[in-house]
Amino acid sequence: MKRLCWTGTTLLFGAGIGASVSRLLSVRGGEEEERPGLLSRVPVVPVPTVQASEPTVSAGGSAVVMKYGFPSLANIKTRESYITSYDPRTRTASWVIERLNPASLSGPSDRKHCDFKEDDSVHVFHRATNADYRGSGFDRGHLAAAANHKWSQKAMEDTFYLSNVAPQDPHLNQNTWNNLEKLCRSLTKRYLNVYVCTGPLYLPRQEADGKLYVRYQVLGRNHVAVPTHFFKVLILEQADGRGVELRSYILPNEPIDQKVPLERFLVPIETIERASGLLFVPNIMKRTPSLQAITDR
Amino acid sequence: MKRLCWTGTTLLFGAGIGASVSRLLSVRGGEEEERPGLLSRVPVVPVPTVQASEPTVSAGGSAVVMKYGFPSLANIKTRESYITSYDPRTRTASWVIERLNPASLSGPSDRKHCDFKEDDSVHVFHRATNADYRGSGFDRGHLAAAANHKWSQKAMEDTFYLSNVAPQDPHLNQNTWNNLEKLCRSLTKRYLNVYVCTGPLYLPRQEADGKLYVRYQVLGRNHVAVPTHFFKVLILEQADGRGVELRSYILPNEPIDQKVPLERFLVPIETIERASGLLFVPNIMKRTPSLQAITDR
Repeated sequence: MKRLCWTGTTLLFGAGIGASVSRLLSVRGGEEEERPGLLSRVPVVPVPTVQASEPTVSAGGSAVVMKYGFPSLANIKTRESYITSYDPRTRTASWVIERLNPASLSGPSDRKHCDFKEDDSVHVFHRATNADYRGSGFDRGHLAAAANHKWSQKAMEDTFYLSNVAPQDPHLNQNTWNNLEKLCRSLTKRYLNVYVCTGPLYLPRQEADGKLYVRYQVLGRNHVAVPTHFFKVLILEQADGRGVELRSYILPNEPIDQKVPLERFLVPIETIERASGLLFVPNIMKRTPSLQAITDR
Repeated sequence: MKRLCWTGTTLLFGAGIGASVSRLLSVRGGEEEERPGLLSRVPVVPVPTVQASEPTVSAGGSAVVMKYGFPSLANIKTRESYITSYDPRTRTASWVIERLNPASLSGPSDRKHCDFKEDDSVHVFHRATNADYRGSGFDRGHLAAAANHKWSQKAMEDTFYLSNVAPQDPHLNQNTWNNLEKLCRSLTKRYLNVYVCTGPLYLPRQEADGKLYVRYQVLGRNHVAVPTHFFKVLILEQADGRGVELRSYILPNEPIDQKVPLERFLVPIETIERASGLLFVPNIMKRTPSLQAITDR
């Protein structure tokens, strides 16, 4: 297990630091080429040791979910269960942040009363519709998951806005992605609060001419972008106020064998910050005395 | 010549309205499929008839350039000669707005004293560098043009931030795009002020499988996106206060034969609004009693 620790404005190192961490740090400073094949590296399973002694009982109301800052400030929308930044060009969110704890996970809400719906707060030129998805072969994949918000029927319904949805491979959605969502929920047993930030990525890859290209499909008459990958950033709040842990994942938008452990998809937060155009660490550092980033190296 | 007129909140029609305008309007309402081949249609040359009786003498200071609103509100940067919205994911601007008039076009400034430079107001993770462009085969194409801001050396220098630049085909940059910039400047002889909004587009096209894909190259270690197209929206302010005219262009980021007239690249503003995720018309309508959109149909 490798951890990177930020304390105040100084970078400190936890156990197991070697050359790989130096490389990571140099990437943060923008001094090193991004390396290919980040997803192919074999990670070490993180085993958080902090137990939540007294989980909070407040549910995932929308204002509190932003405790650790806004990854970006464009087109912010506040919903019962999450806060999101909408990207009118891709017709989906740039990111969605929600807060999970035992209180938000329990309640009488039922998704059978929920239907996917257009977000009429988005201009009709930039809005996804159910028709865009129909017959596309892609699921309407939740960014903030419905099952995270059983505490309120309204909160659950709000996750069905198509602005909280992106085209997702059905096999991924129903298997490995679902497992990652379950992991987020299970971590509420060990942390005071679990802040989850989810979003799409459009990653380049090398083509036959040796050059890098971003390429993604768009769906329907509104040209809803199909992300090449998805990220989830988990901000895990320790119960004793000692600080927070960070786990960040990138999953490709394609079928993934469920036998591949989720830890295989852990990446340095910097990888997501660079690729998404968002920033997480500077904001988090304003709100915690200590940040441990769980990496796969 | 076809014009579309908006007056107040009501859509009115100028001369020459036929079925094509009905189609345009239905596109505005989001009720019609976007049509392929917008760029292949033969436009009618617009001939503005308004003469500026008394051009203003104030130069293109940054606050006044936003008279007709912000196309979006993300990552706004104010510079001497323009205001821009930066896209940290693509490492270039979403849009840049400048105001041209005879005063802004004249002065002692010289671009030989200007060098392209990194924008250190952008986080290092999301910033383009000169090294990203080196050997790429692409020009560093100005969005707000240097020659528009001779009124102040600082204003001209500010156009050399790489956040005001995008990778541009050299032939396009030095020929047809340059001609379009010259056209913008020449229009200052006939209008009180010429507001120019410029930005990149990443347009989908149909591939062999019949599906639509967005595909664009990225340059260098910072993955600077190469736009597939560029737009320019010209908001032409009539001297007598009668309102404004709108001309909107899309040019592909590839060599264009200079014999092709610029009017060939006029498109309905809605095409740019849909593809870019930006909005122009609702903002403009707040500031003018009358808006005539010059289209190619």
